[in-house]
Amino acid sequence: MSRRFSAPIILPCDTACSVIRDGVVDVRDGRITYCGPAADAPQWDALVTELPGILLPGLVNTHAHSPMTLLRGMGGDLPLLRWLNEIIWPAEVRLRPEDVRAGMLLGSLEMLRGGVTTSAEMYFHAEEMADAVLTSGARAVLGGPIMGLPGLDWRSMIATTERWIDADGLRFGPGERIELSYAPHSAYMLPPEALRLTGESAAARGALVQIHVAEAADEDGEQRAEYGSVPRLLEEVGLLDGRVIAAHAVHLSDEDIALFAARGVGVAHCPGSNAKLASGIARLAELRAASVPVGLGTDGPASNDDLDLWAEMQLSALLARLSTKDATAVRAPDALLLATRGGATALGRDDLGALEPGRWADFVHVDADDPAFAAGLDVPDEQLLANLVWAAGSRCVADVWVAGERVVAGGEPVRVDRAKVQAEVREAAARLRA
Amino acid sequence: MSRRFSAPIILPCDTACSVIRDGVVDVRDGRITYCGPAADAPQWDALVTELPGILLPGLVNTHAHSPMTLLRGMGGDLPLLRWLNEIIWPAEVRLRPEDVRAGMLLGSLEMLRGGVTTSAEMYFHAEEMADAVLTSGARAVLGGPIMGLPGLDWRSMIATTERWIDADGLRFGPGERIELSYAPHSAYMLPPEALRLTGESAAARGALVQIHVAEAADEDGEQRAEYGSVPRLLEEVGLLDGRVIAAHAVHLSDEDIALFAARGVGVAHCPGSNAKLASGIARLAELRAASVPVGLGTDGPASNDDLDLWAEMQLSALLARLSTKDATAVRAPDALLLATRGGATALGRDDLGALEPGRWADFVHVDADDPAFAAGLDVPDEQLLANLVWAAGSRCVADVWVAGERVVAGGEPVRVDRAKVQAEVREAAARLRA
Repeated sequence: MSRRFSAPIILPCDTACSVIRDGVVDVRDGRITYCGPAADAPQWDALVTELPGILLPGLVNTHAHSPMTLLRGMGGDLPLLRWLNEIIWPAEVRLRPEDVRAGMLLGSLEMLRGGVTTSAEMYFHAEEMADAVLTSGARAVLGGPIMGLPGLDWRSMIATTERWIDADGLRFGPGERIELSYAPHSAYMLPPEALRLTGESAAARGALVQIHVAEAADEDGEQRAEYGSVPRLLEEVGLLDGRVIAAHAVHLSDEDIALFAARGVGVAHCPGSNAKLASGIARLAELRAASVPVGLGTDGPASNDDLDLWAEMQLSALLARLSTKDATAVRAPDALLLATRGGATALGRDDLGALEPGRWADFVHVDADDPAFAAGLDVPDEQLLANLVWAAGSRCVADVWVAGERVVAGGEPVRVDRAKVQAEVREAAARLRA
Repeated sequence: MSRRFSAPIILPCDTACSVIRDGVVDVRDGRITYCGPAADAPQWDALVTELPGILLPGLVNTHAHSPMTLLRGMGGDLPLLRWLNEIIWPAEVRLRPEDVRAGMLLGSLEMLRGGVTTSAEMYFHAEEMADAVLTSGARAVLGGPIMGLPGLDWRSMIATTERWIDADGLRFGPGERIELSYAPHSAYMLPPEALRLTGESAAARGALVQIHVAEAADEDGEQRAEYGSVPRLLEEVGLLDGRVIAAHAVHLSDEDIALFAARGVGVAHCPGSNAKLASGIARLAELRAASVPVGLGTDGPASNDDLDLWAEMQLSALLARLSTKDATAVRAPDALLLATRGGATALGRDDLGALEPGRWADFVHVDADDPAFAAGLDVPDEQLLANLVWAAGSRCVADVWVAGERVVAGGEPVRVDRAKVQAEVREAAARLRA
């Protein structure tokens, strides 16, 4: 199926963060065939959808535990360990697979409504998560969790992901909406042998490994004592030989950053979660200077608590400016690229995150009828980008397409009934509190 | 006129941040006569408005330059001095009084739509600002600007504010929507004599003084060299004898904080602006510990760039947690109180910022049909407050009343045509760019 979309402003999110005026995006079989000025576009006889606002790529959330919508706000603002011990873990023990499906479905809807088309997910019951994502029409990189807690056998967890990839392939679903990956929790929750075997299994299948790295200052003392740092541990066990994205990566040394850069390890920068939990501020400016591929992540909605990547875009720039005492450290176009192209690159996906021929037609239509754009769209490029990143936000997302299919129209999901999903979550949340 | 409002949840923003379930708010002649459980309410024969969501006081924005909606995003992310010299000041020179009116009107609409009912404003053409605020139905504390630049005579600027107060009174308009105040720009833009005379003039009239204090680390070297710090300068010239709110107050010593506490000086904490301009992080935890009255401010939309106090609420908590390395430093109810009761107290207004008998009936209805509240309203208090502060936001504001009059209904302003205001701003912005 072929369709052309036209808009007064298109932001392809190329490396220069260009602004195309009076542009079109052509889509065939879910992928982009052309993105550029209408004046230079190929001849077109099929349907044209005229959009009055701004088109940009769907945002990429590089780190989430979206089914935790079920637990959002539970325990209020208790200190971390009490919150985990008294509230979250007891609730998670009561989680049923269908709860995870409902929580993921709500998370998917929220993200789609906010213009996030892809999320990288780590949570239990990955099959129900896949089902939820396929139902909402979003796109996800799902991590089968691998943990070393009593009663959890990490070997069988690796094997589960292996079997699934071997059965269904690394990517599947309409428009390849699901990518399977491995999600070893962290170096402090798993023995080095588990990390080594996970890395081998993933590399053999070309699969991504998602792992928490250096989130809190005090979490990995044992590993640092033995290996110097978690990145060095990961290097020594061979995990960095394949595709890896490190979530959080707050407490990295210069050597750790150089290692990530040399091995092409992606970083999921989660400024909101890291601030809310007082974990610290990741070294975004240094990571970017070293050319480490960085994307943005929301983390789970039990701790952040929305799934709003526009807020993370702003926050990443604000915190980088505070850290460096430089008000130009991360500018509007830099922040926009972190949330789009940068996220895709950090996940090792050159088929997402930009409006370029060959990539999937995942894109967002931003409604410019908002005070944020009161100066109009006919302003200089830098002002337009500033208005989009600093003054607009998820509220301005009107329509969203994934693989060329409209999944949000006028701010509401097309495929599923939001009220029904919210009711399912309400019921599950009540049971989890009981 | 009398009216009762009922809602499943009412947050009066008393000092304990209580949650009233199945509550009512009674309003007579624009002021609250009762707020509490429906079961304890006085008998009522007049009209009852049943609201399905959460009622809370209108938010108080303690520091803004709202007409700068006209300049929003101009210059993109240039370094501060280049941005001021090349973009903002040349544009401001071309500002006409009617531009300021249009910009203030848009700012008022934006704030009302986001649940901000009161803003403290410093900008030129205060009469046009008052007209805009009265037109939108919002409430404002307007500061007549006093500056010591070449061509600007600070004596006549003080006199202008004096004459206005003497003519119209300190507060006027329906529901006392306008309060007049003095806005000396800062100690580094005015000689001590100007500050002394401003303080005398304001104290004689019981008027508030709004002033920028210690925003950037390098701005007031001369004053610090002579007086030790700007707060001490203000004390020595007698400015702290009256009502004062210090905007920003980022770079304060322990002694400065103790002085502000002793003299009851309010602080307008502007975390978003201070982060975006890399000015630093105000010492919120220490200010609160010393019982300095603190409210939140957006600063002007040319530099922040929205007028969203919900974002400042979140950011104030995030930055305080990062600064103190304590994830419980500022909790959801603390942040909510900063944006409501705290802001009113910082402005010296005990008739705003809380739902209590005698105060103005300025309040907001938050629509709970949002994923933020998917767990329902029937959750423990701390979860409800966490969902409101951390997961909801300005997008959830459905209806707003000022002095008992509905000024926003279903997310849109009642009194003015938003499209028309945006068109006026677009036209003015184009001229200012030219």
